[in-house]
Amino acid sequence: MERLRKQIEFIHEIDKLKYIQRKTKLFRSNRHENDAEHSWHLAMMVMVLTEHSNAPIDILKVLKMVLLHDIVEIDAGDTFLYDTSKSHDNWNEEFAAAERIFGLLPNDQEEECIAVWKEFEAGESNEAKFAKAIDRLQPVLQNLSNGGGTWTEFSVKFETVIKKINGIQKGSNTLWDYTEEMIDQGLRNGDFKL
Amino acid sequence: MERLRKQIEFIHEIDKLKYIQRKTKLFRSNRHENDAEHSWHLAMMVMVLTEHSNAPIDILKVLKMVLLHDIVEIDAGDTFLYDTSKSHDNWNEEFAAAERIFGLLPNDQEEECIAVWKEFEAGESNEAKFAKAIDRLQPVLQNLSNGGGTWTEFSVKFETVIKKINGIQKGSNTLWDYTEEMIDQGLRNGDFKL
Ligand SMILES: [Ca+2]
Repeated sequence: MERLRKQIEFIHEIDKLKYIQRKTKLFRSNRHENDAEHSWHLAMMVMVLTEHSNAPIDILKVLKMVLLHDIVEIDAGDTFLYDTSKSHDNWNEEFAAAERIFGLLPNDQEEECIAVWKEFEAGESNEAKFAKAIDRLQPVLQNLSNGGGTWTEFSVKFETVIKKINGIQKGSNTLWDYTEEMIDQGLRNGDFKL
Repeated sequence: MERLRKQIEFIHEIDKLKYIQRKTKLFRSNRHENDAEHSWHLAMMVMVLTEHSNAPIDILKVLKMVLLHDIVEIDAGDTFLYDTSKSHDNWNEEFAAAERIFGLLPNDQEEECIAVWKEFEAGESNEAKFAKAIDRLQPVLQNLSNGGGTWTEFSVKFETVIKKINGIQKGSNTLWDYTEEMIDQGLRNGDFKL
């Protein structure tokens, strides 16, 4: 059965996401997170935080987005949010990765996955705005639990942090208010400096 | 905001799933898989294999099942399918874990998560049958890629393997036919012995 053979090949291939290491570390930990763990955590966050979305959203669509959003990093590598050495403009590389990896699937599924991934990347639909808010919020929570985490490690300035993460409010004003409050509180408590 | 505070506490707590190590190893690898990676992989498999379900299913429900099915293992530990030393009868321990961990959420969400988890464990609904089929199939694929994997490592007999995994056909005859064929082929090729 040709469809199933292709699907199984895709399932094998995406196992590699478990080897893609992120800069951020697990909660109260020195252990780096990998993209597969990260994607699972985002999916659980979507399940429990949906009520805070600014707009009504199709949860199934958002789950698909967060589950597959990082698969392109198997070829293109992890892009660190606060990396100043590259312009984050590796769209060509990521697009080629999407075509190669989702291209292992039967055509209709390849098209669906690429469409979901592009919709996430564009960040314009309500689903994409919420998915991106969750993708921003998760490392914030990790950094807050790790005395500043990657912010401290890479000497990121307050303004830069805010600029990079305030997209959270496009998806959820409630989660953004919470994020600002937690950062302010951490700074006041001296948990970390920015 | 009390609801959000509880939800964030839950999100922190389930980070621990990333430390729960399974017996099975990644594809063509010696690296053990952890429960968070495993759960992400199952969710991706659900996304691409739904068409093979014997019965029509609510994909969102199945995704929720596979995403949260192992969270109880944060307290109860991983149960190895071929472990002969314990009877797999740690239901009380797992139920206490579900109550403690999902109990961090607001009541309505706690109830929903426990209901989804119980439905998965009962294995009677079409969604649970398919979710369980995927949960059985994934380590089979890993073992096939690792020269028998945990089957070889723990000297599991052919009859035992078949008995433990033939629940796959309750969820999908197509995936079961494929599984049997792959195991037969691996045995014929001498890739592993059972
Ligand atoms: Ca398990």
